[in-house]
Amino acid sequence: MKVLITTVPFGDKNRLPLDLLENAGIEAVINPLGKKLTEQELADIVTDFDAVIAGTEPITDYVMEQASRLRFISRVGIGLDSVDLLAAERRGIKVSYTPDAPAPAVAELTVGLMISLLRSVQLSNLKMHQGLWNRYFGRRISEITIGVIGLGRIGSRVLNHLSSFGCSRLLVNDIDVDLKFDKSLNLERVSKEVIYKEADVITCHVPLTVKTKNMICREQLEMMKTDAIVINTARGGIVNESDLYEVMQAGHLSGAAIDVFEEEPYTGRLGQVDRCLLTSHMGSMSIDCRTRMEIEATEEAVRFLSGQALEGEVPEDEYAVQREGL
Amino acid sequence: MKVLITTVPFGDKNRLPLDLLENAGIEAVINPLGKKLTEQELADIVTDFDAVIAGTEPITDYVMEQASRLRFISRVGIGLDSVDLLAAERRGIKVSYTPDAPAPAVAELTVGLMISLLRSVQLSNLKMHQGLWNRYFGRRISEITIGVIGLGRIGSRVLNHLSSFGCSRLLVNDIDVDLKFDKSLNLERVSKEVIYKEADVITCHVPLTVKTKNMICREQLEMMKTDAIVINTARGGIVNESDLYEVMQAGHLSGAAIDVFEEEPYTGRLGQVDRCLLTSHMGSMSIDCRTRMEIEATEEAVRFLSGQALEGEVPEDEYAVQREGL
Repeated sequence: MKVLITTVPFGDKNRLPLDLLENAGIEAVINPLGKKLTEQELADIVTDFDAVIAGTEPITDYVMEQASRLRFISRVGIGLDSVDLLAAERRGIKVSYTPDAPAPAVAELTVGLMISLLRSVQLSNLKMHQGLWNRYFGRRISEITIGVIGLGRIGSRVLNHLSSFGCSRLLVNDIDVDLKFDKSLNLERVSKEVIYKEADVITCHVPLTVKTKNMICREQLEMMKTDAIVINTARGGIVNESDLYEVMQAGHLSGAAIDVFEEEPYTGRLGQVDRCLLTSHMGSMSIDCRTRMEIEATEEAVRFLSGQALEGEVPEDEYAVQREGL
Repeated sequence: MKVLITTVPFGDKNRLPLDLLENAGIEAVINPLGKKLTEQELADIVTDFDAVIAGTEPITDYVMEQASRLRFISRVGIGLDSVDLLAAERRGIKVSYTPDAPAPAVAELTVGLMISLLRSVQLSNLKMHQGLWNRYFGRRISEITIGVIGLGRIGSRVLNHLSSFGCSRLLVNDIDVDLKFDKSLNLERVSKEVIYKEADVITCHVPLTVKTKNMICREQLEMMKTDAIVINTARGGIVNESDLYEVMQAGHLSGAAIDVFEEEPYTGRLGQVDRCLLTSHMGSMSIDCRTRMEIEATEEAVRFLSGQALEGEVPEDEYAVQREGL
C-alpha cells in the first residue's frame, strides 16, 4: 500500500501522522517538489499510489486517469473545489475530508485581519519600518456594520468572536434560507447586494463553487463604500483578484485582506497595494488545527487502506454542488 | 480666555470639540508644529495660555514656570506620566483627564496585534509584497498561556475579549492585591516573574511610573520562552526598547508589538526587526474613542474656564504615585 502526501508542510510540527502510516505498514511519500503541485506535476507523480493525502492541488479526471491504482483521496481540510468529485465517483474513488478541524484557526485569523485593517496596523508598521511616524485613525468593531457571507462552520465562529467586541450591526447572508441564527447576536439576514452597499467590513466564508467563483468582481466592489474593507480567507477567486487590484489602485476601499488566491503561490499585482494585507493561505495554519487536520486525514487513509469504515466521507450534498456545475 | 491644544490631530474627524470652545467664547490655538512637542517647544508656545488641552508632551515644572497664566491642564487620555502633578499642585494648576474613553480602542487593538503576531501576519504580508510565498505556522489563543500585567480598565477588557476565543491558561498580575476577578475567566494570579517564564504572550497594561519604567529589560526578556511574544500598548519605556532590540536581533522571542515609545515620533532600531510589529501610538486612535476623549477633555476645559464644577479631576492616588517618586 502506497500513500502520496501532496500537502506540504506535513508532519512538520507533529510526527504522529507519519507514525500512524508507518505503524500501519503503509509506505508514504511526501510531495517531492515541496510546493503546491500543478495538475501535470501531480499527474506525473501520482501514477502508482493507492491513496492521496491531499492539499488543494487540482485532482482532476485527467489526474485520476494517470493513477490506475488510486482508490482513495483524503483531503487535509474542508474545501472540495480542487477535487473532481464526479470523476472520482465514476472511477470508484472514495473521498474523505476534515471539515471541522480548520474552522477555529480560520475564524480567529479573520478577526485578527479585521482589527488590523480597521486600525491600519500594516500601514503603520510599514511606515515605522521606514522610520516614518504616521498616526492613522481607525474604527472599532462595535462602531461599524459588518457583513458576513456564508454562515457555516467558519462564518458562525467569526460572528461569535465579533460579539465579544460588541457589534452595532451584523448583516448576514447564506444560501441556506432555513438557517437558524443565535437570537442573542441580533443578526439581520439580507441580500448580498445589501451587504455590499451597507457594510463597512465584508468577509466571505463560502466554499468555491460555480456560484461563488467571482462572486465579488468589479461590479460588487464598486457597490461598496469608499472606505469599505474586504476579507477573503475562504478560497481564491471568490473575490476577483485583478478587479480588486484595479479598484484599489484607483483609490477605492480602505483595505483588503486576502489569504487565498486563484493561483498559489501568488505573485500577482495585489503585492503593489500597501493597504492590501496579504498572507499565504495561512487560515488553517495554526499548529493545533493543522495537526488535527493531518491526523484526521491520515487516520481516514489508514482506515480505508486497512478496510475499516470511513468516518469523514464527503457527504452527498457536496457531490450535488458539483453536479450543478462547478 | 485662551486654550492651547497641544495634542494632534485634534477636531479632525469631528469638529464638535472646536465648536464647544468657540461657543463658549474661548480662543483656541492648535499646536502649530503639528507634532508631539518637546519640553522646550511647549515652554516656548505655552506662555500666555489659561489652559492646555494636552497630549503626552512633557508638562514639567519648567514648562509651567513659563506659563504664568496657566490654571488648568486637561489631558486627552489616561496616562499622567507626562504631567508633573506635584508641580501643578504647588502652582495651583488643576488637572483633569479622560481615563475611560481610550480603553475599548486600546484593548481591541491589543487583541488584533496578538492574533497578528501569533499567526505571523506581518511577516507573511512583508514577504507577499516582495513576491515571496512563505506559509508560517501559528498558534491560536486557546492553545497558549497568556500573561496580562495590569488589570485596570484596559487589561480587564483584554481578558474579556480573549475569553471569546477560549483561553487555556490566563496568568495575571496587578499591584492591587485586593483586586477581585471575574471567576468565570479562571485567572491565575501569579508574580510577574512567573508570567515572564511561563507565558507565550505577555501584554502590559500598566501606567508609566517609577516602578514600571524599564519593568521589562534584558533580564526579564531573557527569562521568557524563546518563542514568546511581548506586547506594549501602554507607555513607552515599560519595555526597554534597546534591550528588546538586542535580544530580538540575537534571535530571542518570536515576535513583539510595540505601539508606544520612550521618544515619539520613534525612529529607532526596532524598525530593523521584521518580526517586531510597530505602530505609531495608535492604541486610542479609533475615531469614536478619540472623539470621545477630545470632547470630554474639551468639555472639562470649558467647565473650568466658565467656573463650573469639574467632572474628570485627577484623583488623589495619581498624585500619591508621583509623590512616591516618578
